[in-house]
Parts: sequence; structure tokens; C-alpha cells
Amino acid sequence: MALKDLRAVPRNEEGIAAVCGILKQRFGERFHLSGSVREQHGHTTTYIPNQIPDGVVFPESVGEVQDIVRACSEFRVPIIPFGTGTSLEGHVNAPGGGISVDTSRMNRILGVNSEDLDCVVEPGVTREQLNTHLRDSGLFFPIDPGANASLGGMAATRASGTNAVRYGTMRENVLALTAVMPDGRAISTASRARKSSAGYDLTRLLVGSEGTLGLITSLTLRLAGIPQAISGGVCAFPSVEAACKAVIMTIQMGIPVARIELVNQLQMKAMIAYSKLNYPESPCLFVEFHGSESGVAEQAETFGEIASEVGGGPFLWTSVAEERNELWKARHNAYWAAQSLRPGSKALSTDVCVPISRLAQCIAETEEDIKRSGLIAPIVGHVGDGNFHVLVLMNPDDFKEIEEAEEFVGRLNERAISMEGTCTGEHGIGQGKIAYLRRELGEAVDFMLSLKAVIDPHNIMNPGKIF
Amino acid sequence: MALKDLRAVPRNEEGIAAVCGILKQRFGERFHLSGSVREQHGHTTTYIPNQIPDGVVFPESVGEVQDIVRACSEFRVPIIPFGTGTSLEGHVNAPGGGISVDTSRMNRILGVNSEDLDCVVEPGVTREQLNTHLRDSGLFFPIDPGANASLGGMAATRASGTNAVRYGTMRENVLALTAVMPDGRAISTASRARKSSAGYDLTRLLVGSEGTLGLITSLTLRLAGIPQAISGGVCAFPSVEAACKAVIMTIQMGIPVARIELVNQLQMKAMIAYSKLNYPESPCLFVEFHGSESGVAEQAETFGEIASEVGGGPFLWTSVAEERNELWKARHNAYWAAQSLRPGSKALSTDVCVPISRLAQCIAETEEDIKRSGLIAPIVGHVGDGNFHVLVLMNPDDFKEIEEAEEFVGRLNERAISMEGTCTGEHGIGQGKIAYLRRELGEAVDFMLSLKAVIDPHNIMNPGKIF
Repeated sequence: MALKDLRAVPRNEEGIAAVCGILKQRFGERFHLSGSVREQHGHTTTYIPNQIPDGVVFPESVGEVQDIVRACSEFRVPIIPFGTGTSLEGHVNAPGGGISVDTSRMNRILGVNSEDLDCVVEPGVTREQLNTHLRDSGLFFPIDPGANASLGGMAATRASGTNAVRYGTMRENVLALTAVMPDGRAISTASRARKSSAGYDLTRLLVGSEGTLGLITSLTLRLAGIPQAISGGVCAFPSVEAACKAVIMTIQMGIPVARIELVNQLQMKAMIAYSKLNYPESPCLFVEFHGSESGVAEQAETFGEIASEVGGGPFLWTSVAEERNELWKARHNAYWAAQSLRPGSKALSTDVCVPISRLAQCIAETEEDIKRSGLIAPIVGHVGDGNFHVLVLMNPDDFKEIEEAEEFVGRLNERAISMEGTCTGEHGIGQGKIAYLRRELGEAVDFMLSLKAVIDPHNIMNPGKIF
Repeated sequence: MALKDLRAVPRNEEGIAAVCGILKQRFGERFHLSGSVREQHGHTTTYIPNQIPDGVVFPESVGEVQDIVRACSEFRVPIIPFGTGTSLEGHVNAPGGGISVDTSRMNRILGVNSEDLDCVVEPGVTREQLNTHLRDSGLFFPIDPGANASLGGMAATRASGTNAVRYGTMRENVLALTAVMPDGRAISTASRARKSSAGYDLTRLLVGSEGTLGLITSLTLRLAGIPQAISGGVCAFPSVEAACKAVIMTIQMGIPVARIELVNQLQMKAMIAYSKLNYPESPCLFVEFHGSESGVAEQAETFGEIASEVGGGPFLWTSVAEERNELWKARHNAYWAAQSLRPGSKALSTDVCVPISRLAQCIAETEEDIKRSGLIAPIVGHVGDGNFHVLVLMNPDDFKEIEEAEEFVGRLNERAISMEGTCTGEHGIGQGKIAYLRRELGEAVDFMLSLKAVIDPHNIMNPGKIF
């Protein structure tokens, strides 16, 4: 886990000094050397210690990104791409120092093609900014990882979230990218066509590359039509197993569920207290359907029948927007609710993903493990995809607790991998999961390393991450 | 185009002789040197001349594939992966000779996980074989490129077809692969989890790599539930433009159309004659909806209203299986119907894909071009994705005609690329479209070449294709 496996990246003091000089001259006030700005940009949203960059630069165009990359390339200085800093596995840390490239000023929406259901955006555009912009077009961008992350960062970490069961992840929703590569060249990975068989899929190679192969400078994204109607509700189940059974039946029946979120008993307890909910303290599914008025009613009714068949229910649902928003606000605040279970603690948020047929067993064994370990660690999950999160609440100053949490995460990853799953469904490898990538994919990692070496021969793009 | 751009690959006579000796000893009767078998395996489904391999081997296991690759790697001999030989851009040709690896004996279905809606198959399993096997499970594999292709070949060319508008292409439906890489190592690219953020997306790198990076030895595929009900029908339109408008409106309204196929006037004429259809000789859309009984009826009714709004219709639809099958049989036989427009001719089947907003213009300009050129070239298209095919009917012995066809294809590719589209939506680059890859993606191709060079340093995997 993280602390043990943070890869050391040697510092290149001379190169860093040279690049800082060049960037100061080139970018003036848009290049920052102050401690507070640097501190912010090496900030991790988890317990992994901050490793701050030597400077932070705010480019506004592809040409400026090229200038930065060329300078860093010439002097072999690390480049750490930065979106909003909400990643959970230490992606924005600077283990060997270097330059944090903050894309927040590259936040223009370059075009919306409503007939094609796509748009072109700069990497610093956030999910909420895009959806606000789209509101009157009848379209929306469906990927919702919870945080108001930048779209460039979401692509880089192959993010997904609650809607992925219906709309896919960033893997499916990025049609094309432009990127500045480690040698300073700007490339375009694909056309705006919906599909293509023209050459290697560089789009999908960059999506999920965590800033280690190039810096994304624009994204062509698929959009979806805002559904005519939405219904949603919460349903309690006697056990996680019963809830998982309901999920499998829902998907097997082809009900196009838009979100289906599991909240385990401990997490429900936290949310009930935090959001003042009037729900039972047992495992629940938060469910949402998108479609026509009659369609979402039919889907909700059918789901209710499935739930009662496995001993759950009643399924209380609504298609009134305000009531639904209240519901999802509670789900979105799950992180804060969980932290309130142990005030003053810091949460280690980890995620794994398994085939859905193994999900109930994987969660049951994990709950058992948590109990044995004496950890406080609620569970929430995007269970339509077999993906779930454990929030381990730790005293960040207690080394023994951190060690126990790391060992727990290690067992969780092993468990997921042994069930034909993955050590990360949507957070990425970053610094935190390096040890498990090879455990999961074996010699395939050698080929990833070859790709990294040939595209970034001086290892300047986000070094110390993934490998 | 093809004839001009067939890349020369130098022959390595000594290496070929050595490998043929090794494979004869190792595989006995499963290694073929006879002219007829070799001829079959260098067969292209288009007018590109055959370039036959020196030997054809039929492995039955991953270990056997590794033995073949190791021998070819040691002696620097080309390996040409072969599925069913239905590719359209010369993928199975052996421009520098070498060994054709026929996967037809690796045709076992290794597992169906119905709760997970996935299956694991060997590369020689064909689409129809898989769907026959799945029939009783209530599941099906939705990608349908027309031909009964092998699933390994479909992955290698990033195939799609009529259902892609609803179910995606091979890009979206291959969850994981195992492959033997050019150095003989067998790797597994991903787990069976629905989604993952663990490392680079080697799955998507191999999908669409046309056998140039590794030989696929198994595939984990997403499956879909067989819809409870299917409705479908044919609708005539006064113009291609009106038909395209109806397609855009259908998709914008969020109607989850499963297939929406354009047939232009000339192709309708051919199909009416060939399949004895009672339809008008004007541009038509062949449409299919998947869902619940009431859902597919509602969708068909709504589509009918859209059609009449743009001056098309009436939309005659049915949910009776026999009637629908008759309809789609005519669409599936489009290739043969087209050839009957000029008996004795050979068809050059090409495909491009553009953003759907540009589709009407792209097809109109293409029809105009065909008229001016004096070619006989009907058009069919998977227009929900903006993808369409032109079948140029040529006298394969008339060099001037071939040249004219090549020039036409060149203009078509340029037109698609200039409209933010791609020179191939689903056929691949192969030998036929090498010149257009760089025109479309510029310097990105240099990075593809770097990936190729680092993974396959001796250029033994399907040389002379893509680049």
C-alpha cells in the first residue's frame, strides 16, 4: 500500500532550477513558486502524505502547454498534470519535485454539436460547468464521479461513478483527445466520428494513463439526452446478499437502470445520522431510472417486484425532482457522513471491482474482515458494475492504524483479484496501488512499461505513478 | 488506394524455410504447404490481389500459438493471423510471405457467466456459433458485421455492423483479451470486472490492431439479454437528406433504436430485383427496436411520426419474427444484390464514417461524385453511427476501372476526413487505406509506429498492414 510503496523519484535540482527560471520568464504571474500554492497542488484527498511540486504553472493554450513540456523535456524535469486535485490515489503528488501543470485556466467549452450528441472541451472544464452550459440544449454529460472534477482529470484516471451502469465510464464516453506528448508534439488521437477502425486506439491508451504518457489538451465527449422523466427511490434489504441478488435480477431482465447504489448497514447508520434520514438501518439500494414517463414508472414497479421477491422492500420511489435530489444529496454526502462516524479521523477511500456474480461474497468477506480487524470502515458501491468503495476511518497520526489499514486494503485487493476482479474500478493506480497492478495483470505490466518507455523515454510525465 | 499502396515487405527465404521445417515437425498434418490451402488463406474479399503465405498452421492451444510465434520470432518470419478471411482491406494477405495462423481449431466456448452477462471464448469461435450456443441462456452477442466472422478477427479489426448504434462496437464489447505477443509471451490484458482503472488499456490497444501487435488467444465478451420483443420495418423517404434528418431526430429523442440502416435508391433497386421485394425505389431506412412489447410498439409509432414529419413514410412495421427475418435477409444480402447490378463484376467495398450532422451532405456529395465518374456504386449505411459503405462494381481485369475506383475511394476518404470523420468506420486500414491513416491522424501515426516498434521490434506480426 501507499506508504510502503511510494516510489522514490530522484530529484534533478539543476534541471528544476533551470525550468523554474524559464517558466518564470515565460509565464510571469501565471507561474507560482509560493509555498501555499505548491502545497495545494501536492494535496491528496487521502492519507497519502503530500509531496509538493517545485512550481505551479497555469497555461491557457496548447502552445503554452507545449512550451512547458519542451522546457521540462530539455531539462528532464517531472511534469505533474493537475485538474481539481480530487483524485484519491496520490496522482497529483510530486515525489521527485517538478512542475505542476494546473489546467484550470484551460476551461473553455470549444463547441457543442447537438445533432451529433457530442462536445469539445478543454481539460480544465469541470463536470458541473459543462452540465450547466448544456442545460438549455436538452443534453447532459452523464459521468458523475461525485466530486466536481475536471474532465481532463476524469479522462486521465478513467473515472466513472454512479451513472456508469447505464452510460459507461470515461473509456466509453471520450470520443477523441488532443494531447501534448512528452517530446512536445501536439497530437489528435481520433476524428469526431462515433466509431472508427483507423489505426491503434490512442484515445483509449491516454484515457486512464494518469498523466504518464501525455498531457490532455482537449476532449471530444459523447453527450446523452436529458431523459424526459426520472424516477428513483430507496429500498432496504435484509442482507447485502439479497440486495446483490436484486441487482443481478434487474440487470438480467434488461431493465436499463441508470444508477443502482448499495449502501451497507454501517454507512446507512452514518447517513441517517448525518442527513437526518427516515430510513431503516439495514443495507439499502439507491436506484434511479431514466426514460419516458410511463417507462420509468414501469421500471420502478418492476424493480419493486424484484426487491420483494428477494425479501426486500417496500420500494418507495418518486419522480418528483426535489424529493429525488434530496435522496441523492444524501448519497453524494456519503463520504462526509462516513467521516462523522469518527470525528477527527481521515478516510482512506479505496475501491475494487468484481464480476457482479461474486459481489455479494466479496462484500460479505470484506465486512467480516473489517469486523475482525476492529476497523471502522463503511461500504458504498456502484453495484450495477460490481464496483464498491470502502472508507477506512483512521487516525492519520497513528502509524499502527495506518499500517493496519494498509494491510486491510492489501487483503481487499487480493480478494477482488482472486475473484476475477480488479484492484481499482475507478480510482486508478496512482501511488497507492502500484504493488497490486502486477499482482493483477502479471507480465502485461511489462508491455505497459515498454509503452511508457518508448513514448516518455526520460520519464518526465508524472513519474512515480502506476509503475 | 490498395494497388498503389500495397507496402512491399522483403522476403526472408532462409528464415521461411527454417520455420516451415520446424512447424512441419511440430504440427504434422496441421501444417499445410499445399497451394490450395495457402491460396485460400491469402484470399481477400475484395479486389486487392491475393498474396499467399508460405504455410498455414492450425494451432489448438495457447501453448501451440506460443511455439509458432517463438519459431517465427527466432527466424524473423511474418505471422499473419487468420479467422474466417472475411476482412475487406487485405488483412490476411502475406506481402512478404510467412505463416498464416488459422485459428479455426481454437473454437471452444470456455465459459458463459450468465449472471455477469459475459462469456470467454477462443478466437476461432464465430459470431453465429456463439449465438447458437447462447440461445437457451436468454443472452446474445449483439455485434453483427454481416459475415459470420470469427470473434478474434472481429476484435482485431474493431468490427461492428448493424447493431452498433445500440450495443456498441467490438471496442465497447471486449472486456478482456489474452494474447501471445511477438516475443512469445502470453499475457492477459484485464480482469473480468465490468470496469477497471488499473493501468494502460491494453485491451483497447489490441482491439483494432489488425494482428500487428499480438495474436489474440481468447476474448472475454459482454453479452446482452435477448430482448423480450422486437419490432422492425422499412420506411421510404423522398431523399437521403430526409432520411438522415429522421435518423438525427430519432437519436436526439433518445429512442434506443437497435438498428437503423440506410439503403440508397440504387441499392434499393438492386435489392428489390434480387430479393423480390415490394418496396418503392427510393431511399429507405430499415429500422429495428428492442425492448418490452409495449416499448417496441411505442418506439415504432414514434419513429413513424418522425418519418412523416420529414416527408417520409408510411412506416410499415411488424413484431412478427418471420416477417422481420425476411426483411433483414434482404438487407444482409445487400452485397450480393449489389453485385447483380453488374454480373461478372467484383465489388470494392469501402466504408467511411462521419459525424451524423454531416452525413446527408457526405452521402449527397458522394452520390454526385459517383454520377460524374460513371461508376456503378450503390450505398448502404449504418447511419445511426454516421457510417456508410459504397460498393463499387468493377471489372477486376480492367486496370483503368480499378484506377478510377481507387481515385473515387481517395476522394471519398478525403471528403469524410474533411467533415471531421474517419476513412474507416469498421473495415480497418489493412492494406487498402494505409495512405489515408496519416492524412486523418497526422503525427499521431508516429506514436502508433513507436508502439509497434517497441512491441514488435522485428516487425513479424502481420507486416505491411496499417502502416
